[in-house]
Amino acid sequence: MSEDQERVSIVLFSGELDKAMAAFIIATGAAATGMRVDMFFTFWGMSVLRKKGVKVEGKSLIEKMFGWMLPKGADRLALSKMHMAGMGTMMMKNVMKQKRVASLPELIEIAKQLGVNLHACEMSMGVMGIRREELLDEVKDIVGVATYVDDASRSKITLFI
Amino acid sequence: MSEDQERVSIVLFSGELDKAMAAFIIATGAAATGMRVDMFFTFWGMSVLRKKGVKVEGKSLIEKMFGWMLPKGADRLALSKMHMAGMGTMMMKNVMKQKRVASLPELIEIAKQLGVNLHACEMSMGVMGIRREELLDEVKDIVGVATYVDDASRSKITLFI
Amino acid sequence: MSEDQERVSIVLFSGELDKAMAAFIIATGAAATGMRVDMFFTFWGMSVLRKKGVKVEGKSLIEKMFGWMLPKGADRLALSKMHMAGMGTMMMKNVMKQKRVASLPELIEIAKQLGVNLHACEMSMGVMGIRREELLDEVKDIVGVATYVDDASRSKITLFI
Repeated sequence: MSEDQERVSIVLFSGELDKAMAAFIIATGAAATGMRVDMFFTFWGMSVLRKKGVKVEGKSLIEKMFGWMLPKGADRLALSKMHMAGMGTMMMKNVMKQKRVASLPELIEIAKQLGVNLHACEMSMGVMGIRREELLDEVKDIVGVATYVDDASRSKITLFI
Repeated sequence: MSEDQERVSIVLFSGELDKAMAAFIIATGAAATGMRVDMFFTFWGMSVLRKKGVKVEGKSLIEKMFGWMLPKGADRLALSKMHMAGMGTMMMKNVMKQKRVASLPELIEIAKQLGVNLHACEMSMGVMGIRREELLDEVKDIVGVATYVDDASRSKITLFI
Repeated sequence: MSEDQERVSIVLFSGELDKAMAAFIIATGAAATGMRVDMFFTFWGMSVLRKKGVKVEGKSLIEKMFGWMLPKGADRLALSKMHMAGMGTMMMKNVMKQKRVASLPELIEIAKQLGVNLHACEMSMGVMGIRREELLDEVKDIVGVATYVDDASRSKITLFI
């Protein structure tokens, strides 16, 4: 990673399938052209980073409730519009598959291969009681707002999604 | 368009009246001060670009469904809050008219006159089965994410709305 | 305020607790590192700036309706997800308190102490019939889109939340 490399900084605040896809499409598109991309996952966006089938002991009731209510990983997210009790989301996924658009889990895999940095928000993890072992191995580190600000201030493109 | 001109790059992902208005108010405000403005319409934001009364033959059932479900153009969008089965949106439109705030179709016209570039997202059009002839004549071109990234990386202001 | 100071420009369009908190966490985080931060409140984001218990005479019916429907200040906002008729929002506020995360009113106070500039949107105030005396004393001024564009074009980080 050279100092001269142009950078992109994306906050993913939303936990919806369409917004997460938009974030990863821009991230992988930018990384493919040689830019350095850092994605910061916070609040509902943490859902995208959840690993499936991980059980963690010793959570408080309220932490368990967050665990039940938030989507369990990238393939469980819903659309922000036209979700229609799951029908719309399923329909959209099928159309995308048919039209050969990469799915969100595939986009995450591509992002990894292109060297996109995935950062999890320390405060969100604290509030929701999420542990490191519940997150995808692809997550690079757990950071605070100071890291985000420092990174974003060096970036050509800064987005909040 | 000179190379020295300062640039603004706006992604309009949302298909809601209030967010579309915010995007166009910023776009026209920036263009009025002499900046070059590029707007990229994607996902639900494609609704803003739909031309009224166009019938296209040969669409698949699923493409027809997208056509029925998405708002048919800039004057059919709803508010993201207080839509209240159309009453809130109508009320807001009336208040804006009364207070002499430009409507969304008027803002699009102003954007055109100020030379704002409207770009439609290739992938969204593919997924939703939208054809070029269904889009406003004001749309400059149909582009992919690489074009967006290249443009945004040259811009002073980059927004995702 | 020196000309060399790096700048951050944030539009807060949303009137939801979680998005407003995210905006203020980034704003105070950036200000704490010595950056100049300007926040522009528009549309539903105006709710954050409302002072409690102010009665203004001479409003039209429609202006009164906006007053009733919009949240009355920073401590009345709801979550964008999991609001659940107030239960989810209350739960989130309790967890945050317990984990020693600053509340939104506290974040506004910190922002003030760090010199973050809060700007209210002229057009939104006009449309919703909000008067200066209904806004927090912390609000620096009431500005139009030209001021926003000028400010954002000088900023390293530009966000729309």
